[in-house]
Amino acid sequence: MRIHVQNPANDPEFAITQAQWDAAIARSPDMAGLQVSFADSEEGFASALPEAEILLSWVRPLRQRFPAGALPGVAPRLKVIACTSAGVDSAAPFDWLPDSVALLNNRGTHAEKAGEFGIMAILMLQTGMPIFADQQRRGEWKPRFSSTLEGRRVVIVGLGSLGGGVARRAKQFGMTVIGVRNGAGDHPDCDETHSTDALDRVLPQAEFLVLACPLTDRTRNLLSRERIALLPSGARIVNIARGAVWDQDAVCDALDAGHLEGCVTDVAVPEPLPAEHRLWRTPGMVVTPHVSADDHARYNDRTLDILFENLRAMREGRPMPNRVDPAKGY
Amino acid sequence: MRIHVQNPANDPEFAITQAQWDAAIARSPDMAGLQVSFADSEEGFASALPEAEILLSWVRPLRQRFPAGALPGVAPRLKVIACTSAGVDSAAPFDWLPDSVALLNNRGTHAEKAGEFGIMAILMLQTGMPIFADQQRRGEWKPRFSSTLEGRRVVIVGLGSLGGGVARRAKQFGMTVIGVRNGAGDHPDCDETHSTDALDRVLPQAEFLVLACPLTDRTRNLLSRERIALLPSGARIVNIARGAVWDQDAVCDALDAGHLEGCVTDVAVPEPLPAEHRLWRTPGMVVTPHVSADDHARYNDRTLDILFENLRAMREGRPMPNRVDPAKGY
Repeated sequence: MRIHVQNPANDPEFAITQAQWDAAIARSPDMAGLQVSFADSEEGFASALPEAEILLSWVRPLRQRFPAGALPGVAPRLKVIACTSAGVDSAAPFDWLPDSVALLNNRGTHAEKAGEFGIMAILMLQTGMPIFADQQRRGEWKPRFSSTLEGRRVVIVGLGSLGGGVARRAKQFGMTVIGVRNGAGDHPDCDETHSTDALDRVLPQAEFLVLACPLTDRTRNLLSRERIALLPSGARIVNIARGAVWDQDAVCDALDAGHLEGCVTDVAVPEPLPAEHRLWRTPGMVVTPHVSADDHARYNDRTLDILFENLRAMREGRPMPNRVDPAKGY
Repeated sequence: MRIHVQNPANDPEFAITQAQWDAAIARSPDMAGLQVSFADSEEGFASALPEAEILLSWVRPLRQRFPAGALPGVAPRLKVIACTSAGVDSAAPFDWLPDSVALLNNRGTHAEKAGEFGIMAILMLQTGMPIFADQQRRGEWKPRFSSTLEGRRVVIVGLGSLGGGVARRAKQFGMTVIGVRNGAGDHPDCDETHSTDALDRVLPQAEFLVLACPLTDRTRNLLSRERIALLPSGARIVNIARGAVWDQDAVCDALDAGHLEGCVTDVAVPEPLPAEHRLWRTPGMVVTPHVSADDHARYNDRTLDILFENLRAMREGRPMPNRVDPAKGY
């Protein structure tokens, strides 16, 4: 089988190298028969597509590369497109994707790092770090004590890699963890799980709310202005999902009004966020530039391991665990 | 036995209340015979001392209250002075303390909160939060990716409640934990432990350094300018000990020079830190106002439980676990 790896241009930190490929093959010797090509240019991409059966690529170029109806013409042998990101919302709608081609996301690369970022953000909000950061700017030494996380309630929306990683850490700190996800079913690190339909009943209990769901038609504006009002006074929010999952302006308003005590967001609308944007300057808001889930030291190794797991499943006639359902969007 | 509780004036958040006392007695019914008095004024303090056999007090007033040689005259029946802080350095030198009076610290109240603060600080430094805070001030969206903590080396100086609490959390995140303390002896959450004499050999391995020791004559300026130079380039430091344990100016110089990547300090010289002090404004330095170890929701409960454990030991003729050795200073 021919696989083409299309690396992002000008991003050596995340480009998959031949050495990483060789190391991954050494971990998965049953994949040694794959014929691999690499490119990071448009020309390399175009010339690899006629023969490629598997494509490993960043998600962003897909819609431009494959306008609706074009894929069978430019990549007639393609069976699998594996994306290097967990969220594939920027490739939606999936009108460009024939049923015969499986789209894989990269769910599973991000759990560890997202778990660490999530618990860091929760600890920062619990400790009052946004307040201390303001005081530091003013040179003001003003203690404000805080309790430990034990027994505090966190609601986590989305229990994939990101949310699951945060749930595991939250449980280690003795928090009461309430998971919200599509469909029911228990989660090993949650004290309770509820379906998304129950969100309005769950939000009033959220001392902490962690948004960790994919962005889909159903989750766009999930945390609306009305739902922010359902949160208890003094609630704190961590957003490692997508900026469009919450009403960004309403969140800023709720911080300004004192209804929310603090937020840490790793996502924004738009990204990159313009320098003059209100989000940067809303008191109580900590903004990081979309770094919560990408562990650069281990990212490519995990990406290749996950791809190989899926190819193995395909070869053995099992469902590919990372296959995206275009109707759901994840 | 008569016990007097001298609460700090004007600090209702940390004053021990009758209700907290009653709840503690309910947890330790063998202590029901204690006759307790409370005060937060100078007059109340003075009038309780002639009869008090046990004193529970903030550490700061002790040296003023008991000038050298004065204690037997003003508090002739006193057998135990229990301090509500873990560090008793502000009561040193102990020339005022007769051998017949046991001084207890409050070691054990702080482990959980200090562990959470410590791992938060390590996660913040690993993630580059001081850099992102600068970028946020400038409205600059500039990703900088970071790996997880797994396998990173942290050197923790001091393995009492504070350092032990951090070691436990660091181990949960898969870090390699190297403990440094007076005397040898393994620690359950450390991969290695070394005596303080080995510090110069250990520092070059410290990707992270956590200062969590008491301030004594031996630890004053422990992290000197020369020892900062022994740290690897890009090292990160968390100080939850005392500001005088490191050379504060040398730390700022090392941040300015880029030798250190970042620091989180919860302590400073002096406290409160004046608004114009360089520490507030050194890039890469996060300053919090001495809040790393005090869990206000549980502090007084733990304080009383620890006191009762010690009184029980005294009654049974066992060594009191929290007794301070004035020669060592902790």
